[in-house]
Amino acid sequence: MRSPSDSAPLNLLREEIALPAAVIYCTRLQHNLHWMQRFADERGVKLAPHGKTTMVPAFFRHQVAAGAWGMTLATPAQARVAAEAGVSRILMANQLVGKQNCADVSALLRDFPGLDFYCLVDSAQNASQLGAFFSQQEQCLQLLLEFGVSGGRTGCRNADQAIEVCEEIAHWRSLKLCGVETYEGLIHGEDAEARVRTHLQQTRDLCLDLIAQGYIQCEPVILSGAGSAWYDVVSAVFTDHDDQRILPVIRPGCYLTHDRGIYQQAQAAVMARLQNQCCPVGDLQSSLEIWAYVQSRPEPDMAIIAFGKRDAAYDAGLPQPELHFRPGSDQKPTAAPTAWKLTAIMDQHAMMQVPQNADLQVGDIIAFSTSHPCLTFDKWRQLLVVDDDYTVVERVETFF
Amino acid sequence: MRSPSDSAPLNLLREEIALPAAVIYCTRLQHNLHWMQRFADERGVKLAPHGKTTMVPAFFRHQVAAGAWGMTLATPAQARVAAEAGVSRILMANQLVGKQNCADVSALLRDFPGLDFYCLVDSAQNASQLGAFFSQQEQCLQLLLEFGVSGGRTGCRNADQAIEVCEEIAHWRSLKLCGVETYEGLIHGEDAEARVRTHLQQTRDLCLDLIAQGYIQCEPVILSGAGSAWYDVVSAVFTDHDDQRILPVIRPGCYLTHDRGIYQQAQAAVMARLQNQCCPVGDLQSSLEIWAYVQSRPEPDMAIIAFGKRDAAYDAGLPQPELHFRPGSDQKPTAAPTAWKLTAIMDQHAMMQVPQNADLQVGDIIAFSTSHPCLTFDKWRQLLVVDDDYTVVERVETFF
Repeated sequence: MRSPSDSAPLNLLREEIALPAAVIYCTRLQHNLHWMQRFADERGVKLAPHGKTTMVPAFFRHQVAAGAWGMTLATPAQARVAAEAGVSRILMANQLVGKQNCADVSALLRDFPGLDFYCLVDSAQNASQLGAFFSQQEQCLQLLLEFGVSGGRTGCRNADQAIEVCEEIAHWRSLKLCGVETYEGLIHGEDAEARVRTHLQQTRDLCLDLIAQGYIQCEPVILSGAGSAWYDVVSAVFTDHDDQRILPVIRPGCYLTHDRGIYQQAQAAVMARLQNQCCPVGDLQSSLEIWAYVQSRPEPDMAIIAFGKRDAAYDAGLPQPELHFRPGSDQKPTAAPTAWKLTAIMDQHAMMQVPQNADLQVGDIIAFSTSHPCLTFDKWRQLLVVDDDYTVVERVETFF
Repeated sequence: MRSPSDSAPLNLLREEIALPAAVIYCTRLQHNLHWMQRFADERGVKLAPHGKTTMVPAFFRHQVAAGAWGMTLATPAQARVAAEAGVSRILMANQLVGKQNCADVSALLRDFPGLDFYCLVDSAQNASQLGAFFSQQEQCLQLLLEFGVSGGRTGCRNADQAIEVCEEIAHWRSLKLCGVETYEGLIHGEDAEARVRTHLQQTRDLCLDLIAQGYIQCEPVILSGAGSAWYDVVSAVFTDHDDQRILPVIRPGCYLTHDRGIYQQAQAAVMARLQNQCCPVGDLQSSLEIWAYVQSRPEPDMAIIAFGKRDAAYDAGLPQPELHFRPGSDQKPTAAPTAWKLTAIMDQHAMMQVPQNADLQVGDIIAFSTSHPCLTFDKWRQLLVVDDDYTVVERVETFF
């Protein structure tokens, strides 16, 4: 048995890796990386992938090298990780609140003088808190006004609220309004597409109004939206105007590994809307799996798998068996039969139902897809990137 | 703003900590630590707290110092963390499966020659795999036979299965059967207590039979059960026999921080069963909270809190607001009104419903309890232990 420090590459099929392990297919990840960048390029929008999905600085560097305009992050701590990874433009798609959080961003701006940093604001109260803090620091904080979904999450709900925030920002030389942001992914249910479209049009029109009224005076003006479900509609609506100052920015995150659950469904809807026109070749590919052993076959129709909530997302459906492999055999992993289904998951165990005659034994390996990817990544300090032969080509660290 | 490296202790109420943060009350943790140890001592059972709950080696050391017989862990990687923390007896309450996992345990036994290590077995196939592997290593692996719940998780379902496993173990000089283990916490629903009791009696009687039949020849014989919900019943049933060789071992884990959700309910049932007789003074206390800022008040009855699934468990009910604090005031935190309720949680945000006239503003701090604790711990690399004045007295690291 070799240790990771030995020079020969380790292989999953030779059981040289302790399971459970989080496994990423290098080829598919690279495909997804370039697919989304090409999509953005073709649609005339900038890509600021949401880094909170993976929190893997090695992937941030790939995303920037592939052409990303910047990275999106969710917290000051995440932003520092990205800056330390060499990312020079960060959109913190969140409000900045609290003395120590402000101090952390202040230190970030001081430590990385070339960093182009933005965060969101949606209340005059927060604008006032930020204005006072960054005045004391003699620093200038770049802000995007957040426009929100009624009944949804953060963000001003109407133009009056937005103007109130803009007025407060205008009082402070330490604050600079640089654009408008929204997150349309909160809109679900009936007529979702029409409501998403309307919301995005309102966001775009608010941005144009704020430019016209002089609240936004910089250039370019950032107009940003889009998680991994509606980036096609955001790209269409946010480029549908004549103002050359506006820079549309999309922020998908889950596209990088994709999944076999909610984002596979969302992407199918994207592809249907696009009718496969003007798209990059192919489609996003699920590239993240949890590999685990069958540890028990206590009943004829039940297998217990040695992984659980400590290892995999379970918030958008239970993990799905994708591959089956029997160590010691010369065969490659085969597709797991569709009749094999997880029925429950606990902290360190998962229960899988199988037909009574299933050829499945203790020591077999099952690879599972999960949904959604963010909540699988944050369970691991290290993930394994493998080639098409299941040889580990890189161990990437997460920084949660 | 001071950094953690400065000497003066940091205080949560002075906003010297970036939020969200995971906060543990030192006094309550110490209370829980000693409460459960006293319970075990009084009931004549040994305590092997499940360390997977916290995966905080600093807490493992407290638990051992307080009198724990050993620590329970779930995986070889967790077992190594415990051994490196100085724990000299480890019950890995799980099957050991797979070449690299076996190699990791083999290395652990070599690296810690004094370590008293046990793991579970519930199939002849696994016993055979283990026997072959540890023969090659010229090592002896100590095993506990797992007896399981029908329709539940791992573990032999009946005596015939158990005997088959014991026969296989007996073939291998590299394997030693040292007792019987079960996890009764899988039994839920109607008549749960009666069914738990019956299951535990069957487990105990199986252990006595295996001793009588000569399958277990060591001394003491370990007889282990109990998560944090039924440890009183396990203690009663596993001491209700005349065999002096048997050492009853309970393995609760969540008692250390306790919670305000499923374990609070489970503990209320324990206390009701005990009718407060022979108990240590007092009761377990919820000691783990997530502290976070109000980041937005976008609608009169809605507050958005800057924490989410990335920070807190959400598998056993949403986090509950416990305390409200307005920075800059001289007042202590006050109990959060019961009318404040989380309605949804996303990766980095939580939505809280409040009455329209609620005195709650951007920049206020809310402390939340969560349930269950295991899945809050694994979201953090560091948790803050605070004194009764909310001053940070220790930062403890997790090793997931």
